[in-house]
Amino acid sequence: MTTDTRPDLARLKQQLVVAYRIFAAHGVLDLEGHISFRHPDNPDQFVMGRHTPASTITEADLLTLNTQGEVLEGSGTAPGERPVHVGVYLARPDVQAVCHSHTPLFITFSVSDVPLSPLYQWSARMGYQVPVWDSASEFGDTPMSFSNAEQAASLARTLGDRTMALVRGHGAVVAAGSLPELALITVYALENAEIQAGALSLGGTVKYLSEGETQLCNNMLAIPARTTRPWQAWAAAVGMPDAG
Amino acid sequence: MTTDTRPDLARLKQQLVVAYRIFAAHGVLDLEGHISFRHPDNPDQFVMGRHTPASTITEADLLTLNTQGEVLEGSGTAPGERPVHVGVYLARPDVQAVCHSHTPLFITFSVSDVPLSPLYQWSARMGYQVPVWDSASEFGDTPMSFSNAEQAASLARTLGDRTMALVRGHGAVVAAGSLPELALITVYALENAEIQAGALSLGGTVKYLSEGETQLCNNMLAIPARTTRPWQAWAAAVGMPDAG
Amino acid sequence: MTTDTRPDLARLKQQLVVAYRIFAAHGVLDLEGHISFRHPDNPDQFVMGRHTPASTITEADLLTLNTQGEVLEGSGTAPGERPVHVGVYLARPDVQAVCHSHTPLFITFSVSDVPLSPLYQWSARMGYQVPVWDSASEFGDTPMSFSNAEQAASLARTLGDRTMALVRGHGAVVAAGSLPELALITVYALENAEIQAGALSLGGTVKYLSEGETQLCNNMLAIPARTTRPWQAWAAAVGMPDAG
Amino acid sequence: MTTDTRPDLARLKQQLVVAYRIFAAHGVLDLEGHISFRHPDNPDQFVMGRHTPASTITEADLLTLNTQGEVLEGSGTAPGERPVHVGVYLARPDVQAVCHSHTPLFITFSVSDVPLSPLYQWSARMGYQVPVWDSASEFGDTPMSFSNAEQAASLARTLGDRTMALVRGHGAVVAAGSLPELALITVYALENAEIQAGALSLGGTVKYLSEGETQLCNNMLAIPARTTRPWQAWAAAVGMPDAG
Repeated sequence: MTTDTRPDLARLKQQLVVAYRIFAAHGVLDLEGHISFRHPDNPDQFVMGRHTPASTITEADLLTLNTQGEVLEGSGTAPGERPVHVGVYLARPDVQAVCHSHTPLFITFSVSDVPLSPLYQWSARMGYQVPVWDSASEFGDTPMSFSNAEQAASLARTLGDRTMALVRGHGAVVAAGSLPELALITVYALENAEIQAGALSLGGTVKYLSEGETQLCNNMLAIPARTTRPWQAWAAAVGMPDAG
Repeated sequence: MTTDTRPDLARLKQQLVVAYRIFAAHGVLDLEGHISFRHPDNPDQFVMGRHTPASTITEADLLTLNTQGEVLEGSGTAPGERPVHVGVYLARPDVQAVCHSHTPLFITFSVSDVPLSPLYQWSARMGYQVPVWDSASEFGDTPMSFSNAEQAASLARTLGDRTMALVRGHGAVVAAGSLPELALITVYALENAEIQAGALSLGGTVKYLSEGETQLCNNMLAIPARTTRPWQAWAAAVGMPDAG
Repeated sequence: MTTDTRPDLARLKQQLVVAYRIFAAHGVLDLEGHISFRHPDNPDQFVMGRHTPASTITEADLLTLNTQGEVLEGSGTAPGERPVHVGVYLARPDVQAVCHSHTPLFITFSVSDVPLSPLYQWSARMGYQVPVWDSASEFGDTPMSFSNAEQAASLARTLGDRTMALVRGHGAVVAAGSLPELALITVYALENAEIQAGALSLGGTVKYLSEGETQLCNNMLAIPARTTRPWQAWAAAVGMPDAG
Repeated sequence: MTTDTRPDLARLKQQLVVAYRIFAAHGVLDLEGHISFRHPDNPDQFVMGRHTPASTITEADLLTLNTQGEVLEGSGTAPGERPVHVGVYLARPDVQAVCHSHTPLFITFSVSDVPLSPLYQWSARMGYQVPVWDSASEFGDTPMSFSNAEQAASLARTLGDRTMALVRGHGAVVAAGSLPELALITVYALENAEIQAGALSLGGTVKYLSEGETQLCNNMLAIPARTTRPWQAWAAAVGMPDAG
């Protein structure tokens, strides 16, 4: 007899609510932006919050959708930009959790030609020189939001096999193997952005992690405790202790 | 029988108090600065708060003024810079709500020759490259505050048919079709200013919304729910839930 | 019979405590820094807080000193840098209140050759291009603190007939005709420093108030209500309402 | 009979908890980072917090270790980077307290070739032009964390006889004669970093303390009251009054 270590649906829904609160507390999500996880039993479905501010999400606000972006379960309006999640789940069978955010500091880097790039161990999970998807390259002038599968598929191509991409004049998309890992990548990407902006404003030369250092840091962060520890601390800090 | 969908006076007074609290909470207004709406029945009158800090305004602090800047109703001192409101209401029959603020970050951009310009969808309502009115151009050395109708009329010419203008060494004026729309334009103009300042400090090239993108974003934001949703969230956050 | 409008000693002591709390709340004073007023009956004496953090000062912490820096009344240690106050009161018979602070943002400007200069009406009271006193010019290498009358007299010469001077690698000194005026000058000097730093970081050209505008703004701010209003609002905000 | 003025173990453990709280309150420590003191009776031992967020440390979380990094007393996981403390205690018999932190603003300066250097009296204890230890110089690509005694010994060589060194892409190490002194050096190093970053962003020339001024400021700060006073104020501010 084998033991199935895959987290079950109820457990993932609990964690998704915790993730929304952590992301709100850290300023990643605000009025807009959303997090999802891939359904553990039906890989062509995913669960995300309805279109309501992140800090107010409870389990009653969760919706189950399919990869046509149709709501299968739950009530309330699905976020208009759910195609972003669909695009990533379709292109990346390995991804179990996705965040799409309009975080001001990610917008800041998305409109600059200075690439967001890791400066220390904890932010290495976002990858060396985070790519930027610019809607204008393929779609010309648009209202700067995701309205269809074509744009989402194009964004997924920019993401490739990475964990994070910025979206010009819009925000970021982050893809991970679990919700705690999603938090690790995103929160430290944000801290890295602050440190990088500060270092650049000093006016000297900035020494980034090399590609080799980035890879070695990633290997180190693959140790499960490295993901569990910050998740537990952040979950406790928002008053929703969770084992991760 | 037709239904009049125009908001009535009592409703607008409620919303004006909510707007003062939202603007105070977001750092747009502080000791100085004021918001007004055009009287729904008498288009040559407007209602604004008396000269008291924004965070303390209640309905008892509201004054009704005419376009000579005279107080018709209410008690307390009218703000010395009420000519700004008069100037906009006289020049722009379409405008139903006006904010004049001394927000530090708007002063920051007002003294720089780098134009405040939208970088993402939500800030597009302030318009491509917000113009700056400089009192010195027409009036030479002044005490840098609005004391008369001539200065206000000159500012209104700089505003033209736009929603926002900066005032050099002073602050900003924002004009809108409703109080919720006024909040949308102003709060996201402020967030854009933060993002733009951050992006410029990275030292690279900054990619602004193009004029075409700005227009398409504006069309998108014209959908009523785009204005109502943030208003409701911000009103709830200051403890004064309002349907918008 | 004439009416003496000079504030009496008891009233000034009350106001000094309020001033300490306002300056602490606005980040002007912290563990270090002090405020004083000239004794209304004995112009060669002044009253200041003992050497304790600004946010904890009560009337029991006030000391009366003479212009030799000796404590005449009150208990507790007098601040080691009281010579700064002595120097200003000796050189400037018109001055009734002095602040010496180690505010981080004033240190920031004190070590730069970019002069702190007013950008809008409310900060004009600090004067066009605030001068910087550099101890090294006259005294060479020192421990960067005021230990004697010679240094204080030199600083007073740099201050001249102005309201404010910065001290390189140390902080600021502000001189005023009353405690509310001292608050007005200092708090808006600090806000101006934030705005100026922000405007410079945008990378474009910054347009400061001209000397003529600075003078006209100063004339406007000489209207008593311009000083009383912010004082009353700030005093109320720290829970010590004061008529100013 | 002589009096032993050396603080006893119980007293030092109390102070270490206070130090953790002060460092957490000032943003020096967060989820990661640790403080230690050398055992007063066994100089080849030291006491530090277990691997748990700084803001939650109590006396029950303290561990006693030897200079092989082995836990002699206490329960819980020792921080993986304890070699940093070992390295400093072995190389510097004069050092009684060590902090190793991942403070974002110290990482900021650690990746820039602009040296962190004191601008005013209170930060002089960190020393003129704080050196940066770069793991890549001696060890090539690494996961950017301290895993062995060789790296720690190399860092201790960069530290030399100074009080502070930065670690590229990682944080800082601070060494002091007591826990209150450790707080003085670290908290003002952080304030200096903020002031320095601000001064550099103004775009002009920044005047640092000269080597001579730095030395004279250090002499001044060697007066015991200069260390005790901020310690007492910070300890009171975190609700753990301590005489220092």
